[in-house]
Amino acid sequence: MFQNSFENVRKNCPLIHNITNYVTVNDCANILLACGGSPIMSDDKDEVAEITTICSGLNINIGTLNKRTIESMLIAGKKANQLGHPAVLDPVGAGASKLRTDTAMQLLKEVKFTVIRGNISEIKTMASGSGTTKGVDADVADKVTEDNLDDVVSFAKAFAKKTESVIAITGAIDIVADSEKAYCIRNGHPMMSSITGTGCQLSAMTAAFVTANPDQPLEAAAAAVCAMGYAGEVAHSRLSDMDGNSTYRNYIIDAIYNMTPEMLEKGSKYEVR
Amino acid sequence: MFQNSFENVRKNCPLIHNITNYVTVNDCANILLACGGSPIMSDDKDEVAEITTICSGLNINIGTLNKRTIESMLIAGKKANQLGHPAVLDPVGAGASKLRTDTAMQLLKEVKFTVIRGNISEIKTMASGSGTTKGVDADVADKVTEDNLDDVVSFAKAFAKKTESVIAITGAIDIVADSEKAYCIRNGHPMMSSITGTGCQLSAMTAAFVTANPDQPLEAAAAAVCAMGYAGEVAHSRLSDMDGNSTYRNYIIDAIYNMTPEMLEKGSKYEVR
Amino acid sequence: MFQNSFENVRKNCPLIHNITNYVTVNDCANILLACGGSPIMSDDKDEVAEITTICSGLNINIGTLNKRTIESMLIAGKKANQLGHPAVLDPVGAGASKLRTDTAMQLLKEVKFTVIRGNISEIKTMASGSGTTKGVDADVADKVTEDNLDDVVSFAKAFAKKTESVIAITGAIDIVADSEKAYCIRNGHPMMSSITGTGCQLSAMTAAFVTANPDQPLEAAAAAVCAMGYAGEVAHSRLSDMDGNSTYRNYIIDAIYNMTPEMLEKGSKYEVR
Repeated sequence: MFQNSFENVRKNCPLIHNITNYVTVNDCANILLACGGSPIMSDDKDEVAEITTICSGLNINIGTLNKRTIESMLIAGKKANQLGHPAVLDPVGAGASKLRTDTAMQLLKEVKFTVIRGNISEIKTMASGSGTTKGVDADVADKVTEDNLDDVVSFAKAFAKKTESVIAITGAIDIVADSEKAYCIRNGHPMMSSITGTGCQLSAMTAAFVTANPDQPLEAAAAAVCAMGYAGEVAHSRLSDMDGNSTYRNYIIDAIYNMTPEMLEKGSKYEVR
Repeated sequence: MFQNSFENVRKNCPLIHNITNYVTVNDCANILLACGGSPIMSDDKDEVAEITTICSGLNINIGTLNKRTIESMLIAGKKANQLGHPAVLDPVGAGASKLRTDTAMQLLKEVKFTVIRGNISEIKTMASGSGTTKGVDADVADKVTEDNLDDVVSFAKAFAKKTESVIAITGAIDIVADSEKAYCIRNGHPMMSSITGTGCQLSAMTAAFVTANPDQPLEAAAAAVCAMGYAGEVAHSRLSDMDGNSTYRNYIIDAIYNMTPEMLEKGSKYEVR
Repeated sequence: MFQNSFENVRKNCPLIHNITNYVTVNDCANILLACGGSPIMSDDKDEVAEITTICSGLNINIGTLNKRTIESMLIAGKKANQLGHPAVLDPVGAGASKLRTDTAMQLLKEVKFTVIRGNISEIKTMASGSGTTKGVDADVADKVTEDNLDDVVSFAKAFAKKTESVIAITGAIDIVADSEKAYCIRNGHPMMSSITGTGCQLSAMTAAFVTANPDQPLEAAAAAVCAMGYAGEVAHSRLSDMDGNSTYRNYIIDAIYNMTPEMLEKGSKYEVR
């Protein structure tokens, strides 16, 4: 099934409009190319509606946001909705500042997102309208474990129902849920948290997957999450003793580049709850 | 001949002022260092005239442009003209939005560029004042092939004549032309299109080459284009089975770093039309 | 001693707020993760006070500054002072434009910095209020050599006394001084100057070191400088014939990732003057 989702990305080469932070933007562009999509980055209010129009999907990431780009996010998000284009929201750091929380909430209110992808603290913040986020990382108190997994699955399904979006909560265990069904994904490697931007990259890639699979947003988002985690495993297996997080960053993107849909199908580790 | 152009870059270490997008800016800085130049990035209207003044050349790239930086581009471009500094324009995404097309046209009107480098769709857009660009990639309908190469060469020469700039159209076959003479360059590797920013990097490097060779802008620009393509070939030859576009990106910059003027002379593949 | 400083970074995992340029921001984030810190990048005036509050330390870097971010730097700097958080200033390009010099001077006047780190030209500019900087690199006329080292040490101590900051002047020989004591550091490799952003990365890492060692800012800053230089040596030893500055950039961050406090202790090369 994930094989098919990935094949559609490689076949359709979806052009994705990204309004994203300047920290990880280059990696987002390269991973989009690696998976078979095509990126365009554009954040000026005078062009975002047009850029969204020529693209097939939209990825909004609120890292390093500012007033100028928030306005652009709203314009692009509404335009994508109007055109029926899939849209992904990455609420980076929601809970870490009022500006980020408010922006995430405003986007949620004014734009319909196909997928919302964040860490557990960011998603909890969005569900409650306030929260604590340790900078751009999840709060330890929020951590998803085997013990609280069923609770988090229920929470994700409820938030998915409320927002009518697929909710992707990523961490040691990833949960990708709509209101009825949740994929609990156990791909990935702990070292991924030592690289900046694996979350941002995943959101960009998720936009490509849901855009290439418009009728199956849940499966497409789960496939993207598995692909990222599996790439983290493949990349880790290549590391030599002297390699560290910077080489690992490159190898993860390389692993997406070289991953075939068949490899993803075999490498995916998940259960449905 | 290209050997000499490259030797001058290494010898003169031209300081290049870049007003460029935040997607590929780090790669632009590193490739400038790799080729023997020195980069400074600066985009605030209150300092760009001063920064251009202490530099020897200017590189303007309109990716991720916004109102604030457009103003800075115009100030810096005019200042460079006033000082007789070479200036390169990379009209990223011209044709993809009115803002980009208009900005490219305004820059063309108000600033004299030594070189304009883009893909065929971007350059066609600039020649006609409107066009279709597939995001930041060339439209398939515009593709340069052996069949239409003579036509594109004529087009490039005519646009070079009109603008009094060297026109560099890059793609599977690259064309670098002034009004009289065109280099048709067959260096490069198809995998280069799977990396974000090889075009941006080439424009930055072209600025270094034309700045270090002020009397030979056509040859210098053609040398930079050959160097980038040849680096793509060298870098590709190093790739192992597990390497992908991210490692390839690094290896291309590495190849420029290790390229000698002699290697460029021998590795360049071009004909004059 | 440096061993202990580094152990505290790895143990405390300091969260560092960075207001920094868009050229090297990704590398700054990755090196912070590599050394054991945690990065957050944020530059909007409406959130910087809050972000600084949830962090433990602040890193201000004036590369690619603009009016919007200058205001944010001042807000964040004052907030860090108010909270007693360590703050690092990297006056990138001070001396290269009035805007940069004035901004550096204004920050120096309104914010108390724990460490000011720059090349010799930038630091001289700040000490005198004006200067000549070759773009973002030091002016050759300012170069620190064995012959003028004692003079530069005296200058650094005097400027440290005046500012009540630790002064870190980096180059072929690094000097890290407070008003009484100076570490003269001979780690590093000349090839580090062929990468963009090793200085920016060092400033970010210095913020993590002084934040994790609040009672020993001089030793912590010196430890960070040694760590960066030693990483440059380790990374260089890994390079193959075809590797260049891009791979070297990755390997330096990798070397920080894999460096143990014991390795730093043994690898540090310094004398006290």
